[in-house]
Amino acid sequence: MTEQNSNFAPLKNDRFLRALLRQPVDRTPVWMMRQAGRYLPEYRATRAQAGDFMSLCKNTELACEVTLQPLRRYAFDAAILFSDILTIPDAMGQGLYFAEGEGPKFKKVIRTPADVESLPDVSIPSELSYVTDAVALIRRELNGSVPLIGFSGSPWTLATYMIEGGGSKDFRHAKEFLYNHPEAMHLLLDKLADAVIDYLNAQIAAGAQAVQIFDTWGGVLTPSAYRTFSLAYMQKIIGGLTRHSDGREVPVILFTKNGGQWLESIAASGCNAVGLDWTTDIANARERIGAQVALQGNMDPSMLYASPEAIRAEVGSILAGFGSNPGHVFNLGHGITPAVNPDHVAVFVESVHELSAAYHDA
Amino acid sequence: MTEQNSNFAPLKNDRFLRALLRQPVDRTPVWMMRQAGRYLPEYRATRAQAGDFMSLCKNTELACEVTLQPLRRYAFDAAILFSDILTIPDAMGQGLYFAEGEGPKFKKVIRTPADVESLPDVSIPSELSYVTDAVALIRRELNGSVPLIGFSGSPWTLATYMIEGGGSKDFRHAKEFLYNHPEAMHLLLDKLADAVIDYLNAQIAAGAQAVQIFDTWGGVLTPSAYRTFSLAYMQKIIGGLTRHSDGREVPVILFTKNGGQWLESIAASGCNAVGLDWTTDIANARERIGAQVALQGNMDPSMLYASPEAIRAEVGSILAGFGSNPGHVFNLGHGITPAVNPDHVAVFVESVHELSAAYHDA
Repeated sequence: MTEQNSNFAPLKNDRFLRALLRQPVDRTPVWMMRQAGRYLPEYRATRAQAGDFMSLCKNTELACEVTLQPLRRYAFDAAILFSDILTIPDAMGQGLYFAEGEGPKFKKVIRTPADVESLPDVSIPSELSYVTDAVALIRRELNGSVPLIGFSGSPWTLATYMIEGGGSKDFRHAKEFLYNHPEAMHLLLDKLADAVIDYLNAQIAAGAQAVQIFDTWGGVLTPSAYRTFSLAYMQKIIGGLTRHSDGREVPVILFTKNGGQWLESIAASGCNAVGLDWTTDIANARERIGAQVALQGNMDPSMLYASPEAIRAEVGSILAGFGSNPGHVFNLGHGITPAVNPDHVAVFVESVHELSAAYHDA
Repeated sequence: MTEQNSNFAPLKNDRFLRALLRQPVDRTPVWMMRQAGRYLPEYRATRAQAGDFMSLCKNTELACEVTLQPLRRYAFDAAILFSDILTIPDAMGQGLYFAEGEGPKFKKVIRTPADVESLPDVSIPSELSYVTDAVALIRRELNGSVPLIGFSGSPWTLATYMIEGGGSKDFRHAKEFLYNHPEAMHLLLDKLADAVIDYLNAQIAAGAQAVQIFDTWGGVLTPSAYRTFSLAYMQKIIGGLTRHSDGREVPVILFTKNGGQWLESIAASGCNAVGLDWTTDIANARERIGAQVALQGNMDPSMLYASPEAIRAEVGSILAGFGSNPGHVFNLGHGITPAVNPDHVAVFVESVHELSAAYHDA
């Protein structure tokens, strides 16, 4: 499938890819986690047309459509594949569904080591061709305007949903499993890491130009459990990825929510960029790890509820915190929330581009 | 009311108070956040007798009874007043109630600066005499066996519940208020800080020998918002407290959940001890701030779901991480959860006392 890639249009705006590799840029690139989402009326319309959330993910044309919607409104420097982090466990037969207003659920849960042993060995790329088809279509439709980000949940994050059977407040079952059956937990995480490698490589082969690993729940672990049960498997994934495509490096972004205390270990994982949530001071993060990796982040998503003036001031303060070196991708510290006014997103994106000029010579 | 204190029995076990002041002890003292709670069948029985949760808090005899229950089973080195963190907003007329299985709710919410202005000026000690009565009774019933901890929620944490009207996943309304009405937010926090000062001083006058400020939601803020909107008001509280009673210092413990990135600022607040959740490495925390303050924590509460052997090993590892200096109070990194087996708590407490002997000469 690599041959297919060379047919894509040449990239016109490569700020995002350059910043991830800590190369000079003219403006700080910006995108938003969950930028294709419910805050946009056009997203809600397409979602209604598709039916439920997974039908939208599985419909190649509509998944492409919602991916492109935010780019028609805002000058984002990257697109991100519209999909869900839980496609892999779904492909493994766990039966993903979305109960209205309740978030993701699984029909089957993992509660014993035997449940892990009996997980079916499936070919992720063929089970998840709806994802790679969407990647290829989006890449074609982007027509070189901005790069396309592929993504996956981290093995630990996927495991929490598979064990809990959905979201959780205290991760009781996942922690109980980890503490009582560490070997079975390692087996599960290893199976998931292998699946994520196949999945992300298939996305890269189909046209993804950078990938992000979402470790949404790594931050609920102790420091030592984080290293052993989350970071180690993300490191394995990074080591297994196709790192070049179309003659360019495919950068990897690692985002552990609430991982601010462990930035040094995350930066040493082999990733190109570390995603920061808003609880970390970006100036402090740059001091700690900014010489090794790029940083992505990190405005509080709730700041988008504030006035345009306050948003602009906060963008300015984060830009100043990072300073003038290359290696910053602007983003929120977590996904944008549904109740945000779309006009405020425009203020956010324009502020990043306008105010960042002062920090770049290129 | 200070005269009344001198009538209490002399303290037999002062490990907890000594450790908070970083004085030598013979064993590392241990208690558990939410040690009087639903994991105990006798608690559930008393709670059923009282009716709803607030009726239990407001019944002096029953609040005393549930405070003492865990001490009859385990060799804890401190008792903590049984109450709720939301008594102050309730006293201010916000109408606290507990919807079954849904956590705390308020009948009135604060959504505008005018709502803050119109908060009634109430005398906290007289409105909350049910709390101070419970403190005095518990202190008498403890009869000097172990010290009694009083507590309050932090102003920011109280404000989140008052603005959201209950718990929250993303603190949308509280953040929106903070970002759009910073002056009104400061006014609210200042009113709450004054109320907390009166409340904790009344608890100290009634017999509390140490106090803990629970900043449950400080960790959802950006670093700069944390300092301005949460830590600054806890500092104000610390400065306003009666710091001696019965001829002894009344130590203050400050616990910000998910505050691990800000330990240096927290330690500089004037508190005697910093509470750590389980996402912080205690060896690292001691290196960063352990020369200034005592540390309290920090086993993952979910570790109590593990085997006795695993619990003991984790206790050993945390004790080794802190090492042999004085100034460690053992605790969980957050409250114990309802589904824990009470026998595992016995293993936890015994392990702390047995394994800590090696780290103390006294």
